This record gives sequence, C-alpha cells and structure tokens, in this order.
Amino acid sequence: MTNKKLIGVDLGGTTIKFAILTAEGEIQQKWSLRTNILDEGSHIVPDIIDSINHHIDLYKMSKDQFIGIGMGTPGTIDLAKGTVKGAYNLNWKTTQNVKDQIEEGTGLKFALDNDANVAALGERWKGAGNDGDDVAFITLGTGVGGGLIANGELIHGLGAGGEVGHMIVQPNGYLCTCGNHGCLEQYASATGVVHIAQDKAEEYEGNSRLKAMIDNGDEITSKIVFDLAKENDFLGNKVVNQVAFYLGLACANLADALNPEFLVIGGGVSAAGDFLLKRVEKNFQEFAFPTVRTTTQLKLAELGNDAGVIGAASLARRFA
Amino acid sequence: MTNKKLIGVDLGGTTIKFAILTAEGEIQQKWSLRTNILDEGSHIVPDIIDSINHHIDLYKMSKDQFIGIGMGTPGTIDLAKGTVKGAYNLNWKTTQNVKDQIEEGTGLKFALDNDANVAALGERWKGAGNDGDDVAFITLGTGVGGGLIANGELIHGLGAGGEVGHMIVQPNGYLCTCGNHGCLEQYASATGVVHIAQDKAEEYEGNSRLKAMIDNGDEITSKIVFDLAKENDFLGNKVVNQVAFYLGLACANLADALNPEFLVIGGGVSAAGDFLLKRVEKNFQEFAFPTVRTTTQLKLAELGNDAGVIGAASLARRFA
Repeated sequence: MTNKKLIGVDLGGTTIKFAILTAEGEIQQKWSLRTNILDEGSHIVPDIIDSINHHIDLYKMSKDQFIGIGMGTPGTIDLAKGTVKGAYNLNWKTTQNVKDQIEEGTGLKFALDNDANVAALGERWKGAGNDGDDVAFITLGTGVGGGLIANGELIHGLGAGGEVGHMIVQPNGYLCTCGNHGCLEQYASATGVVHIAQDKAEEYEGNSRLKAMIDNGDEITSKIVFDLAKENDFLGNKVVNQVAFYLGLACANLADALNPEFLVIGGGVSAAGDFLLKRVEKNFQEFAFPTVRTTTQLKLAELGNDAGVIGAASLARRFA
Repeated sequence: MTNKKLIGVDLGGTTIKFAILTAEGEIQQKWSLRTNILDEGSHIVPDIIDSINHHIDLYKMSKDQFIGIGMGTPGTIDLAKGTVKGAYNLNWKTTQNVKDQIEEGTGLKFALDNDANVAALGERWKGAGNDGDDVAFITLGTGVGGGLIANGELIHGLGAGGEVGHMIVQPNGYLCTCGNHGCLEQYASATGVVHIAQDKAEEYEGNSRLKAMIDNGDEITSKIVFDLAKENDFLGNKVVNQVAFYLGLACANLADALNPEFLVIGGGVSAAGDFLLKRVEKNFQEFAFPTVRTTTQLKLAELGNDAGVIGAASLARRFA
C-alpha cells in the first residue's frame, strides 16, 4: 500500500479532464480545461503540462508524492514511443511526441492509450467491470468505440484492437465514415439511431409523434427517439428495437469470441438505461452461444464521465 | 536452454496422437493409439498413461528427462482443476479427473486445454503464427472451432472464449446444433458447405456437374464441392463464394475486435488451400476496418495434424 497518488488525464476535442486519485482509484481532486485546438493543436500539450504543474502547487503537493500520469486520447497511438497521430478533432495532423514532452514538462512518468481503451480500463477497475480480468466495453456516443480486456490486459493486437464499432452487423447496409457498409456504428451511435428513425419514418404510415416531428423537419436526437419510445410511440419503439437487434447481435458475436465476465455498455446513448439494455439483452440471449449467454453478463456503465480519468490514472499504476 | 523434453497429447474421438518434442518445439518421436470409448470412455486415461510410460521405456529415457505433459481434449475444461466434462465423442458423460490421474500415473506434471485452443497454440508457436503474441485461429472441420491468442495468452474468458464457430453470420439462418440460427459453423464447416450446395442446387436450373450429382442422390462432400469449383463448375463456384462470404465476414469481425498479426485458417475444409483463401481474403478486405485490413494477415495453417501435439506440448512449457 502506498500513499502516493495517480494523475489521470482524459483528453477530448472540447475538454481536457484531470483528476488526482489514490493508488486505489479514489478520486481526490478533479478539474478541467477547454481544449485549445488552434495552431494545429500545438497548445494542447503545453496546456496539460502547465495545468498539472499548477494544480500540484495549488494543492501544496510535491512531485515525489505522485506515481505518474496516465492519459486517454483520440487518434492512433504508438504505445512504445508514446506518440499520437491522426487525432483530427484535436487538429493533430502530424505525429505528436506526447510522452516525451509531458515527462520533461512535469518530471513525472507518463503512459497513454486511446480514449475508448482508457474508459474500458476505468469501468473495469472501479465501475461495472468489478475489477475482473475479462471485461468488454462498448461505448455508444457520436461514434461507437470499444475496449477489450482479456486475462487482465487490454487487447491492442497490432494497434487497432477493440474497433467494435466497425464490426459489420448488416452487410451492404448503411455507408460508414470508415468507407465500409453496415458497421455497428451506423446503427447504434447517436447519429445511427437518428438515421434509423428517418428511414423508418419514411416507410411508416401510422400514428406517431416521432413521425410527425420528422415529417415536420424538427431536429431529432437519439434522446428524443428513446424518450418517445418510453412513452409508447410506435415508430420510436420500432427504432429502439432495431438498435437493440444490431447491438445484441454485435454483443453476442463479441462475447462468443471473448466470453468476458461483463460486457459493459456506456456512452451517451446508454443513458437510455435499462429501457435499452433489456432489449439488447433479449437479442443477446437469442444470438449468443448457450454457454456464453449464461455466463457473460451485460451491464450498463457506472462511472459516466469519470471513466476516462480513472482508467487513464490506472495506466500509471505500472510505475508504482 | 534445456535438454529436457516435452510430451504433447492430442486426444480425439477416433485417435490419440502423442509426440515427444524438444523444449524448442521440434518433434522427435510420434506415435498414436485408437481411442477406446467403450465403458463410458473409462479406458482412455489409463491407455494414455500406459502408452506414455511404455514409450519412455522404449526410447530408453527416464522421467527426469521430461519437463511435463500437455494435452488437448474435446469437452468443457476446468483449467484450474484439470478436469473435463461433456466430451460426448469420448463417451465422457461425467466429470473426468484427468490431470490428477495422469500426474499420478506418469509422475510428470500435466496441463490441458481444449482441442481448438491447443491447435491454435501449435500454429502460433511453430506454424503460420510465427510465434507472434496476437494470433487468431479458426479451424474448419466437421464443426468450426477457434483459438484466440492476445498478448501472448489464450483468451478463455469464463471458459467458452474462442467459440468463433458460433458467431452469427446470418440472423435467422440455418439452424445450428447449438440451438441458435445462422452460426458460422453452419456455413463454413464440411457439413455447412454441403448444406449450402444442396440449397443452391434446388434453386439452380443451369448446367452443373455438382447439380447433376446432387439431383442424382450421390453423396456430396465439401472436397467434391471445392474440386468441382476448381474445374469451373458454375454451381460449385456459387457455393464456394457463399462460404467465402460468410468466412470473410466472420474473420473481419473477429479481426476488428482483436487486430491479430495473423488470422490462421486450418482444419479439413482449409485443404482447399489458396483457392478458398483468396476468396475469403476478398471478402475480408471488403468487411474489415481499414487499419485492420492492412495489418492483420490471413494465412492457411501450416502444421496439419501436428498442430495438436505441438500446441499441447507447449502447454507444458510452464513447468520448465
């Protein structure tokens, strides 16, 4: 047992979240900054360094009280070198030497991984994953991401491991931003839910508030679709059933491969809660291999926005 | 470097294969026994013990020249206890205390895993996997099995990890022995290939030797289907394309999750070789996430029947 602390950083396109945690993963301090993506994102790393140094002073702490810093980031990561490239929502077009700069600027050891992997580590450690060795995490937001943990370790493979948002659930289906057709992301992300709603509205003739809104040109969000479905809107329910079908199928195929203890569903769309989870579960039960469906447990994420900083901090445990 | 040897045992429903290997995985001796499944399979474990002891004597070796024994077996395995249950092709209806019996009977340390996992370990160590840390293996035989290795370790999850034969590739498709509909196994196993051929023969009216054979009631095998397709039989090619479509889809979804260095295809159906692999590859390229399709490499298995004993032996390396 150590009294030393961890620092977790969750770097996103609009906000950078920070936390100081105990070695056991309890958050003691939290703060955040707006992400300044101007000048090709060149202010981001200096801002992170200044903010960490400033807050260590502010809390009257010293560097030797810390085990290290972990960070989750968008983009493609070279784990060995600690570099990031292709993080377009940060304006990072060229390779960024994040690890070297932050270690030099703070004097602390630094580890990083991608944002979905880090959220998976957070949920696994302190959230729905119950600190298990085998946990799969799917996050339903603007896109669909994932982080897969087997034998206690993240699955990176050659770098793109955990791209569950691009598992094909409908061959020749909706065109995805990745260039393929029928990716899970196109059916289970916030934009995917709205896309399904628009398509189903066109072919539906009956009574539905959702259909009326769409026909009226109102702006639709996935939250509106779920809220109307909860109020028994017929079209809304058809949309939710379709989302749950594809999510249940993908969860089953993933669980047949990994048979994790927990398959955790998080992200903005999962705010629909048990209403969504129950229907995903029904499809999962239909599609998963018998031994898998009776062992792998589907759960909603529990940490919300804190998953990122907690999981990021957990990366720094290797320096203890 | 040790001079001590490994023993690998590949237990199947018709044959038990044995090998003595160096610690580096070179096979030095091989032999086999017919599997005696009479009397609820109660002769199997004693036969294995006798055969190992007998061959150690035969080769004028002593027990202290061995690191240990590893074995691959059908059925559901309790890795911690070293027991097997539900191995129906061995007539093992009740739980078999395999590890304790073999350790007592041979005086050697013993480890086991299921047959598909063990074949995956073999191909990874000495075959197409090039001793990589991230290797996925799919075996196409009477059924479809799999073994998945990430970060250098087999993925067991809660026990059923690697059940890739039961990933759903066609919702509401062919009924599977597992009770679900549309499992990969129903489209890419030897029986699956024949099933597709029969279905497509019914709806095809044109000229085809395969159709003539099926209409004539001749017995069809997957080998016949592939051989005719290679000779440009129209229906045969339609069947192979369908098999390759589902295999390519499953490989892509698996690789999106794991992004392994190699995805190795083995088992009897893979004897169709590059003819099948090229078409699977074409579908894989269409379905896999861009970063995945340019990094994960599809390959044919290289060890044939030896994959089992080599992979089994590799389990015993933990005792070195």
